Amino acid sequence: MPRAVATSDSRRGAKWQLRREAIIDTSARLFANRGYHATGITELCKANELGKGALYHYIGSKEELLAAIHDRVMDEVMLGAERAGAAGGSASTRLALLGQELVDVIHRYPDHVWVFLHEFPALTGERAARFRERRHDYERQVESVLDAGVRSGEFRDLDPWLTARAWLGMHNYTYLWLKAGGHLSARDVAQPFAEIFLRGIQH
Amino acid sequence: MPRAVATSDSRRGAKWQLRREAIIDTSARLFANRGYHATGITELCKANELGKGALYHYIGSKEELLAAIHDRVMDEVMLGAERAGAAGGSASTRLALLGQELVDVIHRYPDHVWVFLHEFPALTGERAARFRERRHDYERQVESVLDAGVRSGEFRDLDPWLTARAWLGMHNYTYLWLKAGGHLSARDVAQPFAEIFLRGIQH
Repeated sequence: MPRAVATSDSRRGAKWQLRREAIIDTSARLFANRGYHATGITELCKANELGKGALYHYIGSKEELLAAIHDRVMDEVMLGAERAGAAGGSASTRLALLGQELVDVIHRYPDHVWVFLHEFPALTGERAARFRERRHDYERQVESVLDAGVRSGEFRDLDPWLTARAWLGMHNYTYLWLKAGGHLSARDVAQPFAEIFLRGIQH
Repeated sequence: MPRAVATSDSRRGAKWQLRREAIIDTSARLFANRGYHATGITELCKANELGKGALYHYIGSKEELLAAIHDRVMDEVMLGAERAGAAGGSASTRLALLGQELVDVIHRYPDHVWVFLHEFPALTGERAARFRERRHDYERQVESVLDAGVRSGEFRDLDPWLTARAWLGMHNYTYLWLKAGGHLSARDVAQPFAEIFLRGIQH
C-alpha cells in the first residue's frame, strides 16, 4: 500500500507505522459503533490504551485519524482496481473482477467502510478534496470499463455514468449486511451480483 | 399517510400537525447537513424560529424528532409499495413499479433519506425496534416479489434474500447523487435501473 506510507510519515520507523495502523483499526471500530462526532479523544485514548500525547504522536488530530481510515479503505479499493485492470480480458471479465475486489474490501473492513460511507462529510479542506479526488478516480475506472464494453459492442448502448451508479450502489451497499465472519463470503455475494449485472447490461 | 397521523398526536388539530411536519422537514435538512449528534437543540430552535418550550411542544425530544424523520420516509415508502402491490401484474411489472416508487421518495426527500440511512443507529429502545420492523416489512415485500417471480418461472432460480439486497442497494444508494431539482428525474433513473435488473434476473 504505497499510498498509506506516503500519507502517514515515511520518516518514522516500521514499528511506528504498525502501531499507527493498529490505532486506525481500533478507532474505526469505535467510530462505526458510536459515530465520529460522538466519539471523544478520551474514548479514543482509552480504546487504544494511550495517553493524549502518545495518541497525537501517532495520529496528529481526530480529523487526521478520520482521513487515515478513509485512506486505508481507498488504498485497498484502488489496489483491487489495479489488479482487476492488470488482469485484462473483456469488459465483462474486468467488471466482474472489480466487483469481486470491491466486495472483498467491504467484507474485510466493515468498520472502516461504515465510517468511510457515513462520516466523509466531516472531512474538511485539503482532506475532503483529496478524498473526493480518490473516490472520483475509482468511479471513473468503473465508468471506463462500462464505456469500453459499449464501444466494443459487448454491452448495450447504456449511459456509463448512470450505469456505474447502479453498479456502485449494488456493491457498496453490502456494507450494511455483509460481515466478516458471517456465513456469506465475499465471493458468495460478488458472483451472483456479477451475474445479475452482466446479464442486465450485455446484449 | 395514516401512519404519520397515528405516530404523531391525533388529538391535536390540523394546524399543529402541519407545523409539526414543517419542523420535521426543516430539521431533516439541518441533520443532513451537520449530522444528528452535532446538531444541538439551540440550532434546531433557531432554524425553526421557535423557543425551546415551543419546539418540545411539537416534537417532545430530539430523538422523537429523528424517529419522526424516519417515519416520514417510511410512510411514503410503504405507501409506494402498497400502490405497486395494488397495481398487480407480473412480478417484473411489480418490481419495476416498486423501484419507480422508491426512487421517487428518495428524489423528493433527499435530506430525510440521508438522515434515515446515516443516523438510524442513534434510535434507541422502542423507536429502534419500530424502525427495524418497518424496514424489514418493506424488505420482505421486495423479497416476496422476487420469490413470486422465481415460483412462476418468470425469474431465474435465484436467492430472493440476496437478490433483494442487490436491488435495495442499487436503488437506495441513489440518495448520494440524486437531487430534487437536478437534471435527472426519478423516472430517468428508475427506468434504466429496472431494465438492468429485470434483464439480470429474468430467464
